[in-house]
Amino acid sequence: MRIALLQTEGHPGDVAGNLALLDDASRRAKTDGADLLIAPEMFLTGYNIGDRTTDLAEPQDGPSAAHIAGLARGRGLAIVYGYPERSGDKIYNAALAIGPDGSALVNYRKTHLYGAEENRLFRAGDGTMAIARIGDFSVGLLICYDVEFPETVRLLALAGCDLIVVPTALMQPPNRIPDLLVPARACENQVFVAYANRCGAEGSLTYVGQSTVAGPDGAVVVQAGREAALLLVELDKERIAEVRNSYTYIEDRRPETYGGLQAETPLAQSA
Amino acid sequence: MRIALLQTEGHPGDVAGNLALLDDASRRAKTDGADLLIAPEMFLTGYNIGDRTTDLAEPQDGPSAAHIAGLARGRGLAIVYGYPERSGDKIYNAALAIGPDGSALVNYRKTHLYGAEENRLFRAGDGTMAIARIGDFSVGLLICYDVEFPETVRLLALAGCDLIVVPTALMQPPNRIPDLLVPARACENQVFVAYANRCGAEGSLTYVGQSTVAGPDGAVVVQAGREAALLLVELDKERIAEVRNSYTYIEDRRPETYGGLQAETPLAQSA
Repeated sequence: MRIALLQTEGHPGDVAGNLALLDDASRRAKTDGADLLIAPEMFLTGYNIGDRTTDLAEPQDGPSAAHIAGLARGRGLAIVYGYPERSGDKIYNAALAIGPDGSALVNYRKTHLYGAEENRLFRAGDGTMAIARIGDFSVGLLICYDVEFPETVRLLALAGCDLIVVPTALMQPPNRIPDLLVPARACENQVFVAYANRCGAEGSLTYVGQSTVAGPDGAVVVQAGREAALLLVELDKERIAEVRNSYTYIEDRRPETYGGLQAETPLAQSA
Repeated sequence: MRIALLQTEGHPGDVAGNLALLDDASRRAKTDGADLLIAPEMFLTGYNIGDRTTDLAEPQDGPSAAHIAGLARGRGLAIVYGYPERSGDKIYNAALAIGPDGSALVNYRKTHLYGAEENRLFRAGDGTMAIARIGDFSVGLLICYDVEFPETVRLLALAGCDLIVVPTALMQPPNRIPDLLVPARACENQVFVAYANRCGAEGSLTYVGQSTVAGPDGAVVVQAGREAALLLVELDKERIAEVRNSYTYIEDRRPETYGGLQAETPLAQSA
């Protein structure tokens, strides 16, 4: 499977502008043979737009989803993108996967909200996993901060995912995430991880770019710089089997000893 | 706290030789101001010695433990070292922590055994955490392969550990472990991780060296090369508080969504 990661500044607050940008990116991605195009967190509206997030939120089957379904169908390309989801009076930081036939495959709601502003704007997802079949890959969705928690990718790997797709909005300076945690998630679970970031400045925020694809051996397959980019990467599913043949991380787990991971008890504090 | 990591070939099959080696290392470590000396996995006997492992196994309070307690007390230095533990007719791949007063602090039995030979020789530990107070640090013990599983370090961090000490016997080629997984464990849990490896050749095995200490921001504080070394590192516990003040990974977990990590169900296979 060939995937394309769209690293972009986008057009904060301008949904029509972002839909036009996605139209152009999907054309380029398809020309380059991509089967799946991944846009960043909150791609549809911008990430750092304060209360306009709420005003611009749409349901899973809202007009922008319908428009993007038309793009996907027209190009014959799957698309994953971030957007603010309205569900009744609740707003989620969400990502939607649309198939190459324009069908909605699965919707994901960010489980680990980051910082005060996200907690003010969004309701956290309930952790329901979002897994879609795209080509011959089982694809799990996460959003940004989620991937920094090893529990999230582990759960998707245990559910059989081959590729974890992570729209993100990572600000500077912490490049330990694309350079360290994203490859580690891939390595410890022997899956592909595709982390598609925003770039440039958006109000007071500056994003690091560095969109990254890591392979099932933990190697960085490709990483963008700081500027806008469309990264094309060929993923070979056989690599997963090869790596899992050498190291049997999933089989060698000792889940009967992991009970404490679920404990609601507060962190024991060291004196 | 100042720690010393002993990276050594050791003397395979020669317990007296290894005790002499530890005597010398503890003297050098103490001279350099260390509070804790960490020796590799199966330091006492050698790692790749086949059935001699069983012959040389000792109980937690066996003669070698008593000898090393004398060293620790004589130098005024805590010591963690790997050894084959005999408990009735069971043999464990274990690590013992001894305090600077010579008292046995805690014993750990490797939970994740690696490969056919370890599974042949050893009984796996039951996952009981081993945590000792050394200086002003809460120190958790793991052994080698254990640290490649994010669940292990997470459980120790949740239990309040500041430093995870990992005697290991890592063979070439996979340097993704000291370079990637050890720093990732430190980063995602905001703790120090000290990974003390063997070096040189032992029978058919060649170890990578690369003993590593990673800090709570995921940075590699120090890493050895391929040769024998005694690494001295000063750990500042305040760094943990600083990093946890910027990123609140432990608080931001969503344990109510992590139930699947304990599931005994077989891995769902992607078609």
